[in-house]
Amino acid sequence: MDFLLVARKSGLTAVMVLLVGLGFCEPITAADTESEAERIEKLLSRQVDCWNREDIEGFMATYWHSGQLTFSSGGKTTRGWQETLDQYKKSYPAGSMGTLHFDRLEVELLSEQVALVLGHWHLDDQGKKKDGNFSLVFKKIGGQWKIVHDHSSSLKAEK
Amino acid sequence: MDFLLVARKSGLTAVMVLLVGLGFCEPITAADTESEAERIEKLLSRQVDCWNREDIEGFMATYWHSGQLTFSSGGKTTRGWQETLDQYKKSYPAGSMGTLHFDRLEVELLSEQVALVLGHWHLDDQGKKKDGNFSLVFKKIGGQWKIVHDHSSSLKAEK
Repeated sequence: MDFLLVARKSGLTAVMVLLVGLGFCEPITAADTESEAERIEKLLSRQVDCWNREDIEGFMATYWHSGQLTFSSGGKTTRGWQETLDQYKKSYPAGSMGTLHFDRLEVELLSEQVALVLGHWHLDDQGKKKDGNFSLVFKKIGGQWKIVHDHSSSLKAEK
Repeated sequence: MDFLLVARKSGLTAVMVLLVGLGFCEPITAADTESEAERIEKLLSRQVDCWNREDIEGFMATYWHSGQLTFSSGGKTTRGWQETLDQYKKSYPAGSMGTLHFDRLEVELLSEQVALVLGHWHLDDQGKKKDGNFSLVFKKIGGQWKIVHDHSSSLKAEK
């Protein structure tokens, strides 16, 4: 708060208001929100296409390439991009990846740099079907939206 | 980076640096991060205390009191604070709430207003134990941290 006093004393408030107007701290507008959400939806659509071509590395490109990526499922958390890739390869080896489909996507921008995406996944491996939902936390890193955390669940069979 | 170029071109860099120092767009410092993370950890600790007193409404106070709250588990998503409360009451009626414990909490501030919290939950109802993990998206609403999304999973029994 000392800085604020200095600013007032030195008469910089007007300059600051001008700079905010110039685009610093620019608030998110409806149009921006829409286009960011669309960008994220496109990324997920491309991710699904990669899966369905059995291009697991392409699928993984949407995830943050970091040891800090976290992927939670079934009460456990896998940590790291490489470890997540290894887990996918183990669970879905080539030839058994099936056909993936996402629906009911909800993209919510929580800030300019953070988005929460909810959605449902459906996997069909030669008639053997699995379904569930996911919560993806996206963060804009180096100008690109990346999944920094994924929590996925499988739908339990109805009794 | 465009902003930086504009700033340099118009010779505003020094003013901009000063203004950031004034508290506008103030970057999160280590001390701020720590205190916000501590606040969130305290909320979760209080939430657990409420559960263990069978005070389900107190437990629910950490959740955003909104129809837009989302709670995902087992491939399904419950929408709304009231609906989440109803679901908890149905799954854990009074007298069968057991003793709750959270551990391995990781609080990450994704922006000044958004935090991602990972952790593990353990429930012991007269020796009948359940365990799992959760991903909580907290948002600062009206100056208070609230869970706006929860995705919880149960640990599958090892085969």
